[in-house]
Amino acid sequence: MKIVGIRRGGGSVEVGVLSGDGTEVGILAGLEEFWAAPASHLAGGTPSRTVPAADVEFVPPVLPGARVICIGLNYLKHVAEGSYSDQQLPEHPTLFARWTQSLTVDGAEVPVPAGEDGLDWEGEIVAWVGETLVDATPEEALAAVVGYSTFNDLTARKAQKLTSQWILGKNGDKSGPLGPLVPAAEVGDLRDGLRVLTRVNGETVQDGNTTEMVYTVGDTLAHISRTFTLRPGDLLATGTPSGVGYARNPQWLLQPGDVVEVEVEKIGTLTNKVVGNEARRAAAEGGQKALA
Amino acid sequence: MKIVGIRRGGGSVEVGVLSGDGTEVGILAGLEEFWAAPASHLAGGTPSRTVPAADVEFVPPVLPGARVICIGLNYLKHVAEGSYSDQQLPEHPTLFARWTQSLTVDGAEVPVPAGEDGLDWEGEIVAWVGETLVDATPEEALAAVVGYSTFNDLTARKAQKLTSQWILGKNGDKSGPLGPLVPAAEVGDLRDGLRVLTRVNGETVQDGNTTEMVYTVGDTLAHISRTFTLRPGDLLATGTPSGVGYARNPQWLLQPGDVVEVEVEKIGTLTNKVVGNEARRAAAEGGQKALA
Repeated sequence: MKIVGIRRGGGSVEVGVLSGDGTEVGILAGLEEFWAAPASHLAGGTPSRTVPAADVEFVPPVLPGARVICIGLNYLKHVAEGSYSDQQLPEHPTLFARWTQSLTVDGAEVPVPAGEDGLDWEGEIVAWVGETLVDATPEEALAAVVGYSTFNDLTARKAQKLTSQWILGKNGDKSGPLGPLVPAAEVGDLRDGLRVLTRVNGETVQDGNTTEMVYTVGDTLAHISRTFTLRPGDLLATGTPSGVGYARNPQWLLQPGDVVEVEVEKIGTLTNKVVGNEARRAAAEGGQKALA
Repeated sequence: MKIVGIRRGGGSVEVGVLSGDGTEVGILAGLEEFWAAPASHLAGGTPSRTVPAADVEFVPPVLPGARVICIGLNYLKHVAEGSYSDQQLPEHPTLFARWTQSLTVDGAEVPVPAGEDGLDWEGEIVAWVGETLVDATPEEALAAVVGYSTFNDLTARKAQKLTSQWILGKNGDKSGPLGPLVPAAEVGDLRDGLRVLTRVNGETVQDGNTTEMVYTVGDTLAHISRTFTLRPGDLLATGTPSGVGYARNPQWLLQPGDVVEVEVEKIGTLTNKVVGNEARRAAAEGGQKALA
């Protein structure tokens, strides 16, 4: 089952089920209604009505106020290839933040900011939190995960590396393409192994497996819940395997015109095209026109 | 003029003007409507109706999807007192992220997470973005600021310092008390100097002035806008002066029962009481009851 966000005629966001052939969406609930009881919507799951996919705008099924918590260094071979390779693996996951405004969907065009040499790919899996978690155990936290999505944590490396803190380069416009939510019951436990592949213009650049993960989803969410309370709709991006572009010799970054795909076993494939910085200005002007 | 967020009878958030004596709120617009044209609402500013302050719940007048971008090291004497004192001042502002879920209001009680030795204070000023900014100049960016608020960037230091990235310790529940928005026209330019004071149980612990700032609001917003597009309602927390608790000898952190105040000249005073971790679980249970 693939859970998607949609907007009909500029209305508010609704959550629905995409049909197997991708041509129809069965509407489950409004966005806030869905996240008030995600597990029961996934279990109950009888769409109130069905609309043609061609007639709707796809958007991430994400609450605007959700937190997108990202693990920075989680696959051992990725740690070894990057700027932190000379340092000991920390005892706790390295967490950075995305705001939901950086998220987009399969098929969206992703701009390279003017000051960057390109964008770097980071194929990942996102876990969706379905319950409130305060001081949770790892078991409670894992049980609260309602689904997983394919994710591309596209990174503006220059902005990321300007200072000690990464968030500027991790929040570029439309830099976080996110696939449909696939229920946890269909995905199973990431520790059992899912292959994560990234391709650029058809060439495989990352080929990892979730068995390489250092910090598990349950441990990481439990850890976070000891400082702040997780809420239904919050997201955990679980980190990327080795093979990113900036650590290659020579460096390889995505340029306007490039097509980047992330494929995760059992969860699905996400395809996005990279465009130039002029798309940022065009989008801002379009947004202002829409508001006027 | 003090702009506040309110909720009446559990309804959606509205934006209003607090009366001089604090007893009444004149309602200006719904939250989304206000941020679609903040400058004109501030200029037009005739409330549609007035309600007693005692009858409403105060909330931050913040869009859930707004970005709270924080400057980490901005007052020279604060840089000199902390963990980064042995490093050269970076050319660009060190930016970290808060999610809007960490924000609260004057008078709210702020819990210390169970694993912390207390919370640290960081008195600050927040600037509110009122226009869309893409690749803006510093002048354009400063002109887009519609107002300022007093802010306390309360920090869970242990969580902040676990890894290289700070965001876990910067997003504790209710750890970001935010005062009313005061229009930029009443505040003037921060570069002209505003005194920023923090007091703990009446004792002054920070006494800085915005003239000590390294990175200006206009320069910082322009810098950010070259990587991601700023939108009306986004917030910039401008950093804290020297005098934080963790850098003292002996260390001094806020304990349950302590009262912390931040006072900024022309912008106002924010007072919050610190409570224990049990308040986190109580709030989560209350929230689930409200949803049920």
